[in-house]
Amino acid sequence: MASRSTSEVDVLIVGAGPAGLMMALWMSRLGIKTRIVDKRTDKVFSGQADGGFFLEPRLQWGHQAQRARPGQHQRLVALHRVGAPPGAHGGLLPGRHRGVVPHPADPSGSPLKVERMVLPTSLEVDEAAAEDDDAHPVTVTLRHLTEAEATPTQKLSNLSDGLFRSNLAGDDVGAMLAQSKGRADVREEVVKAKYVVGCDGAHSWTRKALGPKYEMKGEMTDFVWGVMDIVPITDFRKCSPALVIKSPDSTDETHLLLFQERMANLKTADVRTRCMIHSASNGSLMIIPRENRLVRLYIQLTEVSTGGRVDRSTISHEMIFKAAQKIISPYKLEYHYCDWWTAYQIGQRVGSHFSKCDRVFLAGDAVHTHSPKAGQGMNVSMSDAYNLGWKIGLVAKKIMPRKILSTYELERKQIANELIEFDHKFSRLFSGRPQKDILDETGVSMEEFSKAFNMSHMFTSGLGVNYSPSALVCKPPEEALLLESDKEVQNEGSPVAKSKLSAATHCKPGMRFPSYQVVEQCDARQWTLHHKMPSDGRFRLWVFGGDISQAAARDRVNALGARLEQGVLARAPRLELGPAANPFAGTARFRLDRAPSVVDVLLVHRAPRAAVELLRDLHDVYHPFDAKLGWDYDKVFADGESYHEGHGRAYEGYGVDPERGAVVVVRPDGYVGLVTELGEESWGEIEKYFEEVLRMA
Amino acid sequence: MASRSTSEVDVLIVGAGPAGLMMALWMSRLGIKTRIVDKRTDKVFSGQADGGFFLEPRLQWGHQAQRARPGQHQRLVALHRVGAPPGAHGGLLPGRHRGVVPHPADPSGSPLKVERMVLPTSLEVDEAAAEDDDAHPVTVTLRHLTEAEATPTQKLSNLSDGLFRSNLAGDDVGAMLAQSKGRADVREEVVKAKYVVGCDGAHSWTRKALGPKYEMKGEMTDFVWGVMDIVPITDFRKCSPALVIKSPDSTDETHLLLFQERMANLKTADVRTRCMIHSASNGSLMIIPRENRLVRLYIQLTEVSTGGRVDRSTISHEMIFKAAQKIISPYKLEYHYCDWWTAYQIGQRVGSHFSKCDRVFLAGDAVHTHSPKAGQGMNVSMSDAYNLGWKIGLVAKKIMPRKILSTYELERKQIANELIEFDHKFSRLFSGRPQKDILDETGVSMEEFSKAFNMSHMFTSGLGVNYSPSALVCKPPEEALLLESDKEVQNEGSPVAKSKLSAATHCKPGMRFPSYQVVEQCDARQWTLHHKMPSDGRFRLWVFGGDISQAAARDRVNALGARLEQGVLARAPRLELGPAANPFAGTARFRLDRAPSVVDVLLVHRAPRAAVELLRDLHDVYHPFDAKLGWDYDKVFADGESYHEGHGRAYEGYGVDPERGAVVVVRPDGYVGLVTELGEESWGEIEKYFEEVLRMA
Repeated sequence: MASRSTSEVDVLIVGAGPAGLMMALWMSRLGIKTRIVDKRTDKVFSGQADGGFFLEPRLQWGHQAQRARPGQHQRLVALHRVGAPPGAHGGLLPGRHRGVVPHPADPSGSPLKVERMVLPTSLEVDEAAAEDDDAHPVTVTLRHLTEAEATPTQKLSNLSDGLFRSNLAGDDVGAMLAQSKGRADVREEVVKAKYVVGCDGAHSWTRKALGPKYEMKGEMTDFVWGVMDIVPITDFRKCSPALVIKSPDSTDETHLLLFQERMANLKTADVRTRCMIHSASNGSLMIIPRENRLVRLYIQLTEVSTGGRVDRSTISHEMIFKAAQKIISPYKLEYHYCDWWTAYQIGQRVGSHFSKCDRVFLAGDAVHTHSPKAGQGMNVSMSDAYNLGWKIGLVAKKIMPRKILSTYELERKQIANELIEFDHKFSRLFSGRPQKDILDETGVSMEEFSKAFNMSHMFTSGLGVNYSPSALVCKPPEEALLLESDKEVQNEGSPVAKSKLSAATHCKPGMRFPSYQVVEQCDARQWTLHHKMPSDGRFRLWVFGGDISQAAARDRVNALGARLEQGVLARAPRLELGPAANPFAGTARFRLDRAPSVVDVLLVHRAPRAAVELLRDLHDVYHPFDAKLGWDYDKVFADGESYHEGHGRAYEGYGVDPERGAVVVVRPDGYVGLVTELGEESWGEIEKYFEEVLRMA
Repeated sequence: MASRSTSEVDVLIVGAGPAGLMMALWMSRLGIKTRIVDKRTDKVFSGQADGGFFLEPRLQWGHQAQRARPGQHQRLVALHRVGAPPGAHGGLLPGRHRGVVPHPADPSGSPLKVERMVLPTSLEVDEAAAEDDDAHPVTVTLRHLTEAEATPTQKLSNLSDGLFRSNLAGDDVGAMLAQSKGRADVREEVVKAKYVVGCDGAHSWTRKALGPKYEMKGEMTDFVWGVMDIVPITDFRKCSPALVIKSPDSTDETHLLLFQERMANLKTADVRTRCMIHSASNGSLMIIPRENRLVRLYIQLTEVSTGGRVDRSTISHEMIFKAAQKIISPYKLEYHYCDWWTAYQIGQRVGSHFSKCDRVFLAGDAVHTHSPKAGQGMNVSMSDAYNLGWKIGLVAKKIMPRKILSTYELERKQIANELIEFDHKFSRLFSGRPQKDILDETGVSMEEFSKAFNMSHMFTSGLGVNYSPSALVCKPPEEALLLESDKEVQNEGSPVAKSKLSAATHCKPGMRFPSYQVVEQCDARQWTLHHKMPSDGRFRLWVFGGDISQAAARDRVNALGARLEQGVLARAPRLELGPAANPFAGTARFRLDRAPSVVDVLLVHRAPRAAVELLRDLHDVYHPFDAKLGWDYDKVFADGESYHEGHGRAYEGYGVDPERGAVVVVRPDGYVGLVTELGEESWGEIEKYFEEVLRMA
């Protein structure tokens, strides 16, 4: 044991996978003193998770980028676009394309760097100090590894050993530490942190360090699947209608199920169509076309599905590919180029607890594992961190009270459970034996599969998420009554705000705020609302003002403005953004004279745009003035015809009656917190909401 | 004089500004042995040119990027969108945002690097060897400068001296060379090049080296303008209809002309609206909103417009800003933040010759200068190089005959002359005195200005370009008859192909091939056609096949396919792409077994997509097979309804009658070369076209 220093940090992130990087991005945006460590020398060797990652425009300072086609980012592909609104999700390719994955250094010059080859060796929480705002109650010992220690024992080449990082691989922390045993110059340091987030994967060291109470509940299945990214050479295509769906008692072993396209289009199937081949006795094969000529194959390995743990030494890419050839027969399948391969055993497990004292949190694979086929590995992991990051950040900045942190487990454990439940069913459908006939009750029917497959898009896109009521999510009284667990909401006159869903019938508290196109008042540019909601930690208060060219509607909007100015905006904390959240990042000279309120007020009106004059007609809260940057012209939008992109019909989309208007409060992560009416009678609800959620002056 | 080595290179590019980088990008794409040198230590210090640069999706390997909003590239802004189709142009910010400017290293790992601090000191052309394919007839001596020599004498900070690189600054090559005079260790080398391209700006060393015959013709005007990028603090807005257009004989000095929006919308004007303020006696001011809160001001400096050369020492940002305040009065204008400023004198000059022996070429400011206000500085320079690059590349690869190179001067000198003519008129309108009343003939009328302003969009977007007839541009006989200079075209039975405009009425030979949305046959994804035309040096042969679910139309398309297979495709050269043009760049393993033909055949049909089966219904030329990459599924598209983005109505857009179909040949730079019919009677025209343009086997 050589040197052993002690230092303090606000947030320590363990693991630099998708969840850890997402967490680091939040911390960087919010300007929180943070360290992120990872035991590996380099984390991402090639694409691992694929599938639907919902594109997160809120994470970007969007500026007409939908027209731009820049070089390195252009390999985003929309893989499965049925049933989801445009832009809701596309397939994301990690690994080589990790420029797109939120990265602490994105978008411009955050100083946060991943400290690699650093492994925690002890963790303690001072529970007595857990509720002390200024305490650093988590003590972690970090060991700095040598290059040799940090290099995994498996070969690094994906082609030679695709099972590296598969869930078929074992935990190698023990082996890493064993190497340094007895070494005299081991370098360790002690870090005292306000918060620790374990994003360290299925074998999570952080979870284990929290003790036996923190266990993974669930089971492994018998199903083993291989994955290959290849450029296929194949004659696979639907060549006669009779082949589309083949009865399993035919001599031909191939069944074809197609979900990418409507049934009427079945006959256009080929290897560039996302589809599922369900053979009678050789297992199933899923085909997912990727960028350029690459195709991802998910291949069921029936021969190794013999129960219990799988002997990984029996699995090779040759063996996986032979299984694919057997399933797709009588079509031919060959390849010259393989980009990546792996194999995994399907298991569904959820952690018993997601946090300790709301000081140490677990995110991503560290608290839930499931089959990758629903496209949720990276997705749900990043969403965990996306849910948690702003909460930790705003609490650490004393903008939100600590009690908000408990919503992380409330919200994300619920999602993990829902996903595992779905995945359990879905995996059986994927891996199960196809139904022989209508009386075959243990077989999987085409209809059942098709239905589940389409349902999976709700997970893939994140559109299916519906968080439970809490201070952050004010359900309407009628929904709250159904939830036994949340007595408080039922009380009339309680401090908890209540939503009035009728004001904006398509904005559901606990669900994502949808994004529709509007036209900017000042310069007639069209935007979708998500572009005006960057992930900078601010709550958005969207005012749907109706036709403000009419005096009554205008007065109503301005009366709310005056009330907000004296109430919420006067009392809500201001939010000093980190460098990465500054739209002028890279040009430090361009900063607001005064930090903005954590509550961002925006207006969507329904008047003819030309009939409104921003600075004259509207209260100052809709075009706040800053001594250094002048008026903000960027907070008012019209729901009208754009010059080139048609009419966004946002009022219809959000379900707002232009006569009545509405107010919708959106959380910093884009989920709806409160829906209420525009008039005076609702002002109290808005104030109650922020009273609960923020530390008001 | 110390070391002095000699080496050979295919192409030597002098100057790494927008034209030089564009040229380097082409060379890199085409895999041409190239060097690019620049005398400066670092070229781009901050945004220089602004204005409309037509976004060049053809330069990108587009893959659903319109939905992506990646970090660093998102500051593209659409500044003026009236009158141009969506996507046709947006404002581009160079300097900090030069990631968007084509760069030799874009999109993925080209090895071409700018050699900085390198200055040519002599250039000779061996005219006798000019037509020898294998010769390196241009000999250039390059001097490697020290850091001190390469640092300009002006200060580098834009704020302290915004005139650095303005056309008010002098040539500093002499000063650079003087520094090394007498130094013993001067390092020079000799380069023998097949081609040299001078992209070295208004003071072009290359142009001067070609001798006195290579002169700039035209004149400087009296008009001097300042430019500032600021975050304005202003109350400027239209506050009553009476102020919109003020009569010049009123006591109020401000006239307002607004072009960004339709006249009906005038009253929404503020500093976020592109507009022009034309004061009665203090000159004019153009307002162009930029990203975030930045606004660009073009400010006429009436006080220094006294004729002849301007004394730049009198110009400062304080002085420019005071002029702006005077023009905008009675509105207030202040700022805290200035991002960049400069000033320039308007001059319009065009070089007498654009090339020497078609071995040394001049591009960009080296052959034409004009006012920056039409947004054409960077734009036309890049377009020069974009026009020239593939020609040099394909000639160097012996794919095209050398005679094609003469089309560079033919095409780009014409554009430069048209632009200068327009700019001459436009500048007068900008800088001239506003008309007092309808009888004031020397004053500028609002109507005149408005008309010219709208016309400028045709230049800004590049949509106004219409190249003259040549081997590359086959005009229809009726248009060719009007052109005295091109006798050959008039001869019946000449080897030159003739277009039939009626086949695709909106595709004009010599003009840009427009881009409309279609739906990919194999996977139902929508694309605009430009995405399928990357800048890789290939000609595109677009077949508009009509409703190929009908046997007659399908037979016609397949008959053309068979003919192409035996004729053009059998005889046309194949094109080995450079690493930067490989869609699998970065993964060298993914290469076609055999280089593709320089003629790329693509099909847009009008049948219901589901009624077509790619591999079964269509001739092999529409889904070419490669031994390593399998079938190419990416060449056939339907003009139909997409799942999420509506119907592109491509046939309407291109002016093609679905009953008759059409064939359009598009040059590697996206300009239409030939328009003809689909039937047998037109096969000969297609073959004639390629016979002239390519070195057929």
